[in-house]
Amino acid sequence: MTVLDSTSNSHDSDAEAAPELPEVEFGVHPGSYNHWSFDVDGDVATVTLKVDEAGGLVPGYELKMNSYDLGVDIELYDVVQRLRFEHPEVKAVVLTGGLERMFCAGANIRMLAQSSHSWKVNFCKFTNETRNGIEDATTNSGQTWIAALNGTAAGGGYELALACEEILLIDDGSSTVSLPEVPLLGVLPGTGGLTRVVDKRFVRKDRADIFASKSEGFRGDTAVAWGLVDATVPASKFAEEIRDRAQQAAERSNRATAAHGVELTPIEPTTTDDEISYTYVHATLDRQGRNVSITVKGPQDAPPADASAILEQGVDYWPMAVTRELDDLILRLRTNERDLGTWVLRTEGDIDTVLAYDAQLREHADDWFVNEIVHYYKRTLKRLDVTSRSLMAIIEPGSCFAGLLLEIALAADRQYMLEGTYEDRDEEQTPAALVITESNNGLFPMGNDLTRLASRFWGRDDLLEAAVARSGDRLEATAADEIGLTTMALDDIDFEDELRIVLEERSSLSPDALTGMEANHRFVGPETLETKVFGRLTAWQNWIFYRPNASGPDGSLRRYGSGTRGTYSVERV
Amino acid sequence: MTVLDSTSNSHDSDAEAAPELPEVEFGVHPGSYNHWSFDVDGDVATVTLKVDEAGGLVPGYELKMNSYDLGVDIELYDVVQRLRFEHPEVKAVVLTGGLERMFCAGANIRMLAQSSHSWKVNFCKFTNETRNGIEDATTNSGQTWIAALNGTAAGGGYELALACEEILLIDDGSSTVSLPEVPLLGVLPGTGGLTRVVDKRFVRKDRADIFASKSEGFRGDTAVAWGLVDATVPASKFAEEIRDRAQQAAERSNRATAAHGVELTPIEPTTTDDEISYTYVHATLDRQGRNVSITVKGPQDAPPADASAILEQGVDYWPMAVTRELDDLILRLRTNERDLGTWVLRTEGDIDTVLAYDAQLREHADDWFVNEIVHYYKRTLKRLDVTSRSLMAIIEPGSCFAGLLLEIALAADRQYMLEGTYEDRDEEQTPAALVITESNNGLFPMGNDLTRLASRFWGRDDLLEAAVARSGDRLEATAADEIGLTTMALDDIDFEDELRIVLEERSSLSPDALTGMEANHRFVGPETLETKVFGRLTAWQNWIFYRPNASGPDGSLRRYGSGTRGTYSVERV
Repeated sequence: MTVLDSTSNSHDSDAEAAPELPEVEFGVHPGSYNHWSFDVDGDVATVTLKVDEAGGLVPGYELKMNSYDLGVDIELYDVVQRLRFEHPEVKAVVLTGGLERMFCAGANIRMLAQSSHSWKVNFCKFTNETRNGIEDATTNSGQTWIAALNGTAAGGGYELALACEEILLIDDGSSTVSLPEVPLLGVLPGTGGLTRVVDKRFVRKDRADIFASKSEGFRGDTAVAWGLVDATVPASKFAEEIRDRAQQAAERSNRATAAHGVELTPIEPTTTDDEISYTYVHATLDRQGRNVSITVKGPQDAPPADASAILEQGVDYWPMAVTRELDDLILRLRTNERDLGTWVLRTEGDIDTVLAYDAQLREHADDWFVNEIVHYYKRTLKRLDVTSRSLMAIIEPGSCFAGLLLEIALAADRQYMLEGTYEDRDEEQTPAALVITESNNGLFPMGNDLTRLASRFWGRDDLLEAAVARSGDRLEATAADEIGLTTMALDDIDFEDELRIVLEERSSLSPDALTGMEANHRFVGPETLETKVFGRLTAWQNWIFYRPNASGPDGSLRRYGSGTRGTYSVERV
Repeated sequence: MTVLDSTSNSHDSDAEAAPELPEVEFGVHPGSYNHWSFDVDGDVATVTLKVDEAGGLVPGYELKMNSYDLGVDIELYDVVQRLRFEHPEVKAVVLTGGLERMFCAGANIRMLAQSSHSWKVNFCKFTNETRNGIEDATTNSGQTWIAALNGTAAGGGYELALACEEILLIDDGSSTVSLPEVPLLGVLPGTGGLTRVVDKRFVRKDRADIFASKSEGFRGDTAVAWGLVDATVPASKFAEEIRDRAQQAAERSNRATAAHGVELTPIEPTTTDDEISYTYVHATLDRQGRNVSITVKGPQDAPPADASAILEQGVDYWPMAVTRELDDLILRLRTNERDLGTWVLRTEGDIDTVLAYDAQLREHADDWFVNEIVHYYKRTLKRLDVTSRSLMAIIEPGSCFAGLLLEIALAADRQYMLEGTYEDRDEEQTPAALVITESNNGLFPMGNDLTRLASRFWGRDDLLEAAVARSGDRLEATAADEIGLTTMALDDIDFEDELRIVLEERSSLSPDALTGMEANHRFVGPETLETKVFGRLTAWQNWIFYRPNASGPDGSLRRYGSGTRGTYSVERV
């Protein structure tokens, strides 16, 4: 099929007058925050949202009533990360708002109305990942997040609260929690609200139905009775109650104590029009072929001696550095390079050195910093799993897909491995090998709680056991192929031809169909709250976002606040 | 929000030149089949697809190469039902094709190209339900379906095979299995193909990726090696091998033997423009209010004495009759009355008599006919669960929501119950009561394998146990509300006002947002292959179906076969 530039196939659901999308960068720091602040007092941090109305990422809307856009959420992501890495002393996090009577009004509607479909979808994905990250901090970092709703939490504002372990609502006679998206905007709550209400807070589903179709939401009594919040607290006792709850959470925490945190220094890749280059991660953008070559480099040096030496290296410790760079690259490419549909994933380095780091992560698993790195790498791999790009792993001589780096190959949709060496290159090459380690057996579970190996061999426990039994072996192409770790193992006569054909074929297919196909294949087996949000909820939301009832010229999103209400086709589909 | 007629908000993704949609009826019989035939030989039935090219349900396409449309699938549904009810002797079913070298080419593409979005979505839903029904026959009726692919099975043709327990492919040097939807049509396989390949047949997901992006599919060797089919058989031995496998399956069957089957006589409702009326099910269509009032009537007489008396009553046995009528009504309303967005569900009758039948279904659970009725009613309730209409149960004096009929209330999005009686009506009324029975504790599981009670109290085992503990009690409004069976219990001063407001409010909301919201709320908790197909896969497919890359004037569906290939926006979303 022939392929048009994305701009030439415009669609009435996309905002025609949308401003040019900015190149989004994801690196921020507390000194640059426009919308958030946080204070640490002993083992409790207080994170406060006070959105700068004029500080939208894109022109065209004002962020009134603590509503948010992608820029606000990028700062929140930074807050979450800094609390985990820079503040080992923090064991409970209070999330609250800096406005009177309005905790957070959710995603800014004018922003949604003027945004292209892809911007809306990317925005929701990132915000979902950040909320999952908050839950991950509670579960795996001993940093329990508590929502202190000092005013109304509407839509995305309430969904932010839902990501916290406890939700306390001020009892001031007017503040409510609500999910007004369905009645007011004709779309779904976009960051897991429907799912968390029934599957996390166990609100009865008929009540969830009423709640999500009632724009004004509920005040304290009903909200508590139905389980939408944990408690309401009179304004006069609010601060005290929050402090008590935070203190109790901190006391329950198993977070390891530490001398000091690790400063998250800026990540500053060198970028040109077709390259994004970090210390250990390098990306070459092929705009003609519409793909990106991503190479992850192994460590240069042997790992540091012990936990304190690891902490000393801080952000320069290889597993930490490589994770931060990969995270930043994924976010940039996803948001800014939407026409590059295939990512080709390679590694480069010494397998033994990678294995030494891999073992070290397990050896020091109870060290707070190592624990943070492991979960950060896990979350970064999960970003790959939900990225709407075709992922192709290329396993060649000089690669180091071992242990933690093997996960990158396993996250890919396919794995191509060279058998032997490239005859026309360096004769001294060693053939590529894959190495499974204990890390692949549980350190970095996917969103569905399976390891990537278990997901690969879903329903075939015999094959999974056979693969795990080869842990530690250097599996060259024939062996790797035999136990099912590669999609194809080819000698150098066929290898490059095959790759060229695969990339050409992939770029000829419908990007939409590929997104749907990959989303279905990547998550085999069981489902969790997380995969339900990214699978069921997101897919329905994408459909709704694209329908004229929401995004057409007369749809609810465009008409919102105009004084003229949206018009709907009445047909149920 | 104001509401437009559905025709006034047309969208470029919908086929502009689509013929007027026909009123679809679902009642067919073997004598009327255009596309299917079946023969019964001992305990093995052979079902043969030979599509009448000129027999499309709608003008505008020819059903070449055993491709299908809704009309073909309506006949298949009838075949599945007749084998279960009319042929108790059948213990294995061979599914094969009546053309040379082509088992089935899948859904007809010109039909898809010319169809409106809602038609495509409804078509996929019905075909999915039929394939789930085939699996249900294998699992619960001791009728094992075996796909005897006497030629190529492409797309929906292969998905039909995937619904069978075993797949045998003829080895004639050319026949293949394939899922060419992504590469050829820019859409997903629409009847569970992606999900069943990885989650039922446990094909490795990187191979599934290759398979679903390779339009020509695979011949025998690879198909067997990858698990896409169970075996290939040379043409010369095909008939014999199929016979052997069918015989083996029949021997494994636990299907109870029976004297004779139950003839599925025609269902012939009385219809007017605003009524559809059967013996036990009555629907009033309110086009102004855009809702349908559905009343299910309880039995008039006490149940027959024993299993042979039940069999004697056949299709007139109340649970059977009510199921058939409800099934037919759901299908008609879903397909033909798409603008009626809310279904109001009522029952009417004597609770004790309902309970007597309810007990009888359990008492004779090992009788083949009763077993069939139970599973048929279960499947019909599952149709409600995936119906994109708001479902409101109204529980009033004179209703009989007990045991099996309570499931209808539990399938609804909300349950409104009158407290006491209507003062201005018959003074002699008894207040409404709900009755939980053992049937509600496992006889009619939802697609997610939970009972509707467990789904209602998901995450709250304490409440579930408390409700189950009240089994057999007549729960009037206060008691029912207390244990959480009702959304609201209101006295007659508020009741009718509340209902009016609920229906008005519901019809003011975006139909798309309601579809998405209900699809997310109805299936809390665990997921199964079935819910993954209706949730994740269907939601993505709906999105893809609506995008210009598939359905726009230059999209792949519209361009297919025109000589000019589709053009895609290259943006990944």
